[in-house]
Amino acid sequence: MRAHNLALVLHTVANSTDRLSRAGVAAVTGLTRATVSALVDDLIAGGLLTELDPPPRTGAGRPAVGLALSAAGPAGLGCEINVDYLAACVVDLTGAVRQRFVEHADQRASDAAGSLEALGRLAARARLAAEAEGLTVAGAALAVPGLVTGDGVVRVAPNLGWQDVDAPALLRAVPELADLPIGVDNEANLAALGELLVDPAFLSGGGRPTFLYVSGEVGIGAGLVLDGELYRGVRGWSGEIGHVTVYPDGRPCRCGARGCLEQYAGQEALTGDEPLAAAALGIALAAVVNLLDVPVIVLGGAYAPLFTELRAGIEEELTRRVLTSGLAPVALRPAALGADAAMRGAADTVIRAVRDDPAAWLRR
Amino acid sequence: MRAHNLALVLHTVANSTDRLSRAGVAAVTGLTRATVSALVDDLIAGGLLTELDPPPRTGAGRPAVGLALSAAGPAGLGCEINVDYLAACVVDLTGAVRQRFVEHADQRASDAAGSLEALGRLAARARLAAEAEGLTVAGAALAVPGLVTGDGVVRVAPNLGWQDVDAPALLRAVPELADLPIGVDNEANLAALGELLVDPAFLSGGGRPTFLYVSGEVGIGAGLVLDGELYRGVRGWSGEIGHVTVYPDGRPCRCGARGCLEQYAGQEALTGDEPLAAAALGIALAAVVNLLDVPVIVLGGAYAPLFTELRAGIEEELTRRVLTSGLAPVALRPAALGADAAMRGAADTVIRAVRDDPAAWLRR
Repeated sequence: MRAHNLALVLHTVANSTDRLSRAGVAAVTGLTRATVSALVDDLIAGGLLTELDPPPRTGAGRPAVGLALSAAGPAGLGCEINVDYLAACVVDLTGAVRQRFVEHADQRASDAAGSLEALGRLAARARLAAEAEGLTVAGAALAVPGLVTGDGVVRVAPNLGWQDVDAPALLRAVPELADLPIGVDNEANLAALGELLVDPAFLSGGGRPTFLYVSGEVGIGAGLVLDGELYRGVRGWSGEIGHVTVYPDGRPCRCGARGCLEQYAGQEALTGDEPLAAAALGIALAAVVNLLDVPVIVLGGAYAPLFTELRAGIEEELTRRVLTSGLAPVALRPAALGADAAMRGAADTVIRAVRDDPAAWLRR
Repeated sequence: MRAHNLALVLHTVANSTDRLSRAGVAAVTGLTRATVSALVDDLIAGGLLTELDPPPRTGAGRPAVGLALSAAGPAGLGCEINVDYLAACVVDLTGAVRQRFVEHADQRASDAAGSLEALGRLAARARLAAEAEGLTVAGAALAVPGLVTGDGVVRVAPNLGWQDVDAPALLRAVPELADLPIGVDNEANLAALGELLVDPAFLSGGGRPTFLYVSGEVGIGAGLVLDGELYRGVRGWSGEIGHVTVYPDGRPCRCGARGCLEQYAGQEALTGDEPLAAAALGIALAAVVNLLDVPVIVLGGAYAPLFTELRAGIEEELTRRVLTSGLAPVALRPAALGADAAMRGAADTVIRAVRDDPAAWLRR
């Protein structure tokens, strides 16, 4: 009950558009003022809430002190490995990015242990810099362009050349990360979560949006959000849009098939032939809309900066190939977070775990 | 509270593998025996439950009377219109098909009003025959190969040539149906629900299966079941697999696009060129699996009797084109209900509504 009420108070403060006082939280939650005050004291002591100075007095009486999420408490360490870069960021409980490190280097020259050691060192720098600012990193999450099992093992990351890589174990080999819980997920899934969090258009859409996030890197992944929830598939392997066939007898793909989307609209095929890439994307996205009735498609990764070049070509195919295009158009837009979406989404999974179960954080 | 408990008792009897007595229902539900007895009396009076003679005595004591769903109470009228047939069935509360009428006739020769009048007459015959057996038809549901809005209006049914057809109003124009509530849904959606209900492999699989049901008719539709729930899409227009592109510059389709699956694997293209149909189906289904990580595909409609001819060709493409095919194969199987799946699923929506809210039925 106390665990439930701690989460209730924390969520109430986090989701309020006004700055609430203790009395305000009591009014919203229906808890007594004494109960709220005791819970708030615990949340402040644990570094989850902070009490802000009252605004300047404008009338009679003592103004109430306002509550806010703490910017000096637990934080999430978000990491990403992709074919041509490593990245790490630290996001605090309010959602603000406090540290951000990116290192460009082709990871195909390295094996999984080498790449993850380099990423681990980058992440350690981010962690130390954040902790020097007074934050406490509560955990880490890693975005990988591949198929990930529930326990964080990367079954296959074709463009990295990885197979059955125990990514959490390799990251924890870096001493500064040895004590952290580390989650792993597909980069497009995490980017979709990141996008869901920061885009006001989604947040205002009743809070339960349905969209496809497409991440254009060397490979192409997708994160599917249905009714506000990431749909991972039965084995967690949904979103492999890069291997949807667009031309059955087309270019050979490293997966063994022919005509995969990735061979026409992956980052390496894309450069210099945007019209071909846009047409191929349009054909594959039309399949998604015909199958799933998805009203919004968000283009991320390398597609975000190329959005204006790609848009018309994609929309032409959507208009031609989506059965319902005459009844309701599909909205196409660039990712709000750009290339940072996956690591932001990763960091947020850590933050969200703390916000959903503050009692566990206080017990630590 | 009484409404909730009525549903609880009805579900408990329906879902029990043993035949329960009143005392058994009390034990399972945690309600008092007196409460259960009063509720059971109401459900028996309303024709929803029946009390069965005890089995022959095998020991001492008075054997308890067993409860069962009534086969003489409310029933669902399921109707289907497709390009080359009309069909209607009546299913009782136990799930048994009590009446079944099918009329083969090309509906493209007729307009919507004509087709729905003919279907209405067929449905009226099914209703009257069922009521002559003592059943009470509680409502009707219609399966249509097209896009249906929430209020039952068929926006488009391309292969029937329908646009904005108020199907419930036209069916209710047949006097014997004028008093019935009539729902309308896409035929592949309803067929997927039908399949979900009767297939023991699904029922035993933890009850929350994920599968794609593909309905091969003149058009091709799909019903997507995710974690045990039909996924309809934001506007109810998911499952249009017939218009997924398989050959971008291929055969022109009546939808205006080129290379739609329907042009290679629809019933009219299929006959005589099963290898081409199987390859096209395999390409489109591989896209579904890559996008959604669906572990089971059920082939229904015209595909069910052709399953052995189609299987190898489809599996060849799935193996080649699904990124995860080496990690976990996709199970392919024929529909358990064959061509009756959609009307059985339709009838079941009526039955399920009664089972979920028996109080509403008793109040009628």
